[in-house]
Amino acid sequence: MFLMRIGAPGAERPVVRLDDTHYIDVFDVTPDFGERFFAAGGTALLTERVARGDAREFAGERIGAPIARPHQILCVGLNYSDHAAETGQAVPDEPILFAKSPNTLVGPYDDVRIPRGATKTDWEVELGIVIGRRTSYLDSVDEAASCIAGYCVVNDVSERAFQMERGGQWSKGKSAETFNPAGPWLVTPDEIADVRDLDMWLNVNGVRRQTGSTKTMIFDPFFIVHHLSQFMVLEPGDLLNTGTPPGVGMGFDPQVWLQPGDLVELGIDGLGSQRQRVVGPR
Amino acid sequence: MFLMRIGAPGAERPVVRLDDTHYIDVFDVTPDFGERFFAAGGTALLTERVARGDAREFAGERIGAPIARPHQILCVGLNYSDHAAETGQAVPDEPILFAKSPNTLVGPYDDVRIPRGATKTDWEVELGIVIGRRTSYLDSVDEAASCIAGYCVVNDVSERAFQMERGGQWSKGKSAETFNPAGPWLVTPDEIADVRDLDMWLNVNGVRRQTGSTKTMIFDPFFIVHHLSQFMVLEPGDLLNTGTPPGVGMGFDPQVWLQPGDLVELGIDGLGSQRQRVVGPR
Repeated sequence: MFLMRIGAPGAERPVVRLDDTHYIDVFDVTPDFGERFFAAGGTALLTERVARGDAREFAGERIGAPIARPHQILCVGLNYSDHAAETGQAVPDEPILFAKSPNTLVGPYDDVRIPRGATKTDWEVELGIVIGRRTSYLDSVDEAASCIAGYCVVNDVSERAFQMERGGQWSKGKSAETFNPAGPWLVTPDEIADVRDLDMWLNVNGVRRQTGSTKTMIFDPFFIVHHLSQFMVLEPGDLLNTGTPPGVGMGFDPQVWLQPGDLVELGIDGLGSQRQRVVGPR
Repeated sequence: MFLMRIGAPGAERPVVRLDDTHYIDVFDVTPDFGERFFAAGGTALLTERVARGDAREFAGERIGAPIARPHQILCVGLNYSDHAAETGQAVPDEPILFAKSPNTLVGPYDDVRIPRGATKTDWEVELGIVIGRRTSYLDSVDEAASCIAGYCVVNDVSERAFQMERGGQWSKGKSAETFNPAGPWLVTPDEIADVRDLDMWLNVNGVRRQTGSTKTMIFDPFFIVHHLSQFMVLEPGDLLNTGTPPGVGMGFDPQVWLQPGDLVELGIDGLGSQRQRVVGPR
């Protein structure tokens, strides 16, 4: 199943995508794809509604993030060995965890806004995991699959000067508004042959910058969910950004940073693609 | 005004405390002290209801955190010069920012649970700031006061092994369930003579461990709100933990860590006091 949220920011309606041109509005089943929806059963609640039909045609509506603002957005850093190398950092022994403000979440085609005072705004195509149920102290990695509602494309936009040069912790460089485009779809696990073997890519102004695959992840999605569950309680609808493959702007020589007017396009096999225009500070 | 939430976990009712024995139930004005309440005007909404009276007597109800689960809990690290010294770290040039999972929030008398695998669980009495309106790019520190709904006592419980020895970022050691007792009250700024001159203290098993004052903060509450607003958008109801004075367990020689059965008591002048029993892992 492919979940989407369409409509104006803050007024998105939850729908199930049937194909490129058709969807089923499921507002009568749930007002949104948020914590309450996932806690109550998630996509299982939609099966009967989708079977009943009443398909509509997309009419150019804005596409929002495929989930409502989550309880938390957690991020794993340096989770691709080649990316760790390009940033000059050691391959970690275990997932490096940091958090991102949940109100960074925007739609896959919304503008990305460079924050005031920024000098090193960067891109990161990532596999996003959406948690399907309250998750704590999983006994084994094998249990993790049952805790995952689905996957989506994420651009984990980062301001490297704020991240690296403003106090040691990374949150300052990850939490500016518009810094977490997600979607266009939340794809349920049954639609994906192997989440550990998905090609991913990112272009800036038509130039390929990132080319990778989830198969070069150091810690795969199931390892990450099991690992994080040992430190905190994951809530239904939480979003986990699982790290980025090589090719971020910080890794080039000379380094390349996003500028107003730039066009960023990115995607992951089977999860759809995004396109953001970069705009200057408010 | 002193806001409280009383009742069973997850079913707290919002009330205004009149004195040690009396309160006014304000559920008919707002279902909770959450983001929507603060965005709509916060305590200004309660004035008329409080004037109308109908005081009730406290009857031993559990006291919850004084605010609903916020959009985010942000923390400032090493914000007291003596505390930085005791942990062997340099005084920072600007606030060090990290985040804590919002579902760590519990009431001021609830148990604090040591996480599985923990070896270095520590205490931190802190001044908590609750944000009163959407806050972004404040032009000056002077503007910050108008963005603050009130203050509360927080125990920023920390697992130092998870924080310091598990990947470099601090979130893993800050986000275990029960790790953020807050309250008993949210105190509006007009009730406090000078938030930059409040004595604070913490005892473990009756032994004084922390003695401090907000006047030795490196970055005061207004500086912090202005500073964070340059990096992210603060939402109404967001909670900011502003750092701890000297006397954490990590700072003793030999170091002292919380054990099941320990009793932690803490307070800040004018903001009330807390008491938590420490319990072992689930």
